[in-house]
Amino acid sequence: TEPRDFELMFKTQMGASADDNDPNATAYLRPETAQSIFVQYKNVMDSNRVKLPFGIAQIGKAFRNEINPRNFTFRSREFEQMEIEYFCRPEDGLRLTDEWLANRLAFYDEIGLKKEKLHVLDIPDGERAHYSQKTYDIEYDFPFGQQELEGVAYRGDYDLGKHKEHSGKPLEYFDEQTKERFIPHVVEPSAGCDRTILALICEAFDEEDLTKEGGKQDIRTVMRFKPTIAPIKAAILPLLKNKPELVAKAREVKNLLQPYMNVFYDETAAIGRRYRRQDEVGTPFCIAIDFETMGLEEGKEDLKDTVTIRHRDSMEQERVAISELLPWLLERIH
Amino acid sequence: TEPRDFELMFKTQMGASADDNDPNATAYLRPETAQSIFVQYKNVMDSNRVKLPFGIAQIGKAFRNEINPRNFTFRSREFEQMEIEYFCRPEDGLRLTDEWLANRLAFYDEIGLKKEKLHVLDIPDGERAHYSQKTYDIEYDFPFGQQELEGVAYRGDYDLGKHKEHSGKPLEYFDEQTKERFIPHVVEPSAGCDRTILALICEAFDEEDLTKEGGKQDIRTVMRFKPTIAPIKAAILPLLKNKPELVAKAREVKNLLQPYMNVFYDETAAIGRRYRRQDEVGTPFCIAIDFETMGLEEGKEDLKDTVTIRHRDSMEQERVAISELLPWLLERIH
Repeated sequence: TEPRDFELMFKTQMGASADDNDPNATAYLRPETAQSIFVQYKNVMDSNRVKLPFGIAQIGKAFRNEINPRNFTFRSREFEQMEIEYFCRPEDGLRLTDEWLANRLAFYDEIGLKKEKLHVLDIPDGERAHYSQKTYDIEYDFPFGQQELEGVAYRGDYDLGKHKEHSGKPLEYFDEQTKERFIPHVVEPSAGCDRTILALICEAFDEEDLTKEGGKQDIRTVMRFKPTIAPIKAAILPLLKNKPELVAKAREVKNLLQPYMNVFYDETAAIGRRYRRQDEVGTPFCIAIDFETMGLEEGKEDLKDTVTIRHRDSMEQERVAISELLPWLLERIH
Repeated sequence: TEPRDFELMFKTQMGASADDNDPNATAYLRPETAQSIFVQYKNVMDSNRVKLPFGIAQIGKAFRNEINPRNFTFRSREFEQMEIEYFCRPEDGLRLTDEWLANRLAFYDEIGLKKEKLHVLDIPDGERAHYSQKTYDIEYDFPFGQQELEGVAYRGDYDLGKHKEHSGKPLEYFDEQTKERFIPHVVEPSAGCDRTILALICEAFDEEDLTKEGGKQDIRTVMRFKPTIAPIKAAILPLLKNKPELVAKAREVKNLLQPYMNVFYDETAAIGRRYRRQDEVGTPFCIAIDFETMGLEEGKEDLKDTVTIRHRDSMEQERVAISELLPWLLERIH
């Protein structure tokens, strides 16, 4: 086919009565969040009394008229971008780029992406964007191939320089100690939020072979999210739904935890089935309220006001006092 | 002037190589978040095992080509909307609309908007949107006048009915107990996020007359946010920045709290001035680390490992043990 022009940004007209062909009314949906940070940089600097180096972080929607949306949410026309513009002295730029790369890798480790699935590409000369003197791509082994999660780019003073040039506004930083006035350089870690979530889902997904009582084989579907990032932290499960005292106590436990974390209350079906449902959504801790909690189990009266905590990964159970429950959980989910 | 056509939605072309005039490529930026909930409703219902009544809540960007953006962030072309679509049996719709109105008023009370500044308008027949059998507007006394914060609308089965009609897909709910199959009715609380934030800022802003030592008059600027919604929960302030032991202890306290809440560390300028800065951004609690914390104050050795907590509103101070600090704060910020 013949070559065609591609419009990689979304074009629209601003102003309710604007004519379709009025160039003054033409606007584009932003293809990255970075530039709004540069535009706000002086404002943020002046009102926050910051000294170099300092960063401004932003998360928000960006829009690109992708030629090929694909791979689930990996590449889409509307996506959530997380960017940090880190302003520094020119002589610190390259060093801080390496530091940010290390920090970002530590972040991915912290949220649970396996080190061996992360790869760093040092983009060679001639292949980097025109503004960049150094760029690292952090890639992840998705099931559909090794793909970029994030770029850490050293943008030099390109952006602030251009904003200054075209706006005519001074964007210099004044260093009180050295009495120098200069345009800060910028290190930019820029990551896709949807991509990170997709990587977390790919990483967490597991099908575990279990041998049930009687030797029957079973497959357990479990999302092995780290507790820090699991969408639901704890499930509150009264053993039986037709025992008002169990249900009342379970609701009490739910009310105790709910202000501090996302919890899920479920009273329907057998407890084993409810555990499995929580495994499927990756809830790290299931809290069962049973007759022992009520102090109604003969010979086990000392278990009154304790609950069973069932661990998602090991399926092991332990008893914890309700009075200890909140700190026990907070320690594990933070 | 002559009457003109107004385009109240933002129009764009989707597909990188789409022609400007290709009607198949025309897309509009969504003017509300509600319809994506209706489109997802069956999916959510099937995967979450929910029974009527149940709600789906969403927060997200919406875009309107406003004729008159104005009043700070109150009316803008790009805004953040929070909507709940609450699905119910037809006979419960009107009652639940009243219940949601009460719930939403309780929410505004909880985040700190004064009751006497909130007004409910029961929109009369003939002035409601075509789909609505009942609509309440919740308005707030902004400094620029009484303006809408939220609408609570009873939308009946209008939306699901239309989606069913035009998509040809069945969108009925099946009630297992009564064996009935019907299109649920919907109650919709729809609020502006930016407007709520603006209301909170207007409500919190205060200039307090103080009489300083020596009778001098002073004005203290203070944002009286409720601790639950204050952007910074606590400021950690070592008394002096040139005493390494104070700074080290202050950083320890910061690291203790940071995983649980947004904290701010500040070591520059006199402590009184640092308190005032925190007042200006509405930080409810300032935590000072002083010589008593270090156990270095003669006759006050028992104050070792305690900190001074200074309350924003009363400016009163009290001492709390570092070991008690986290629960002390968690209780007050949740």
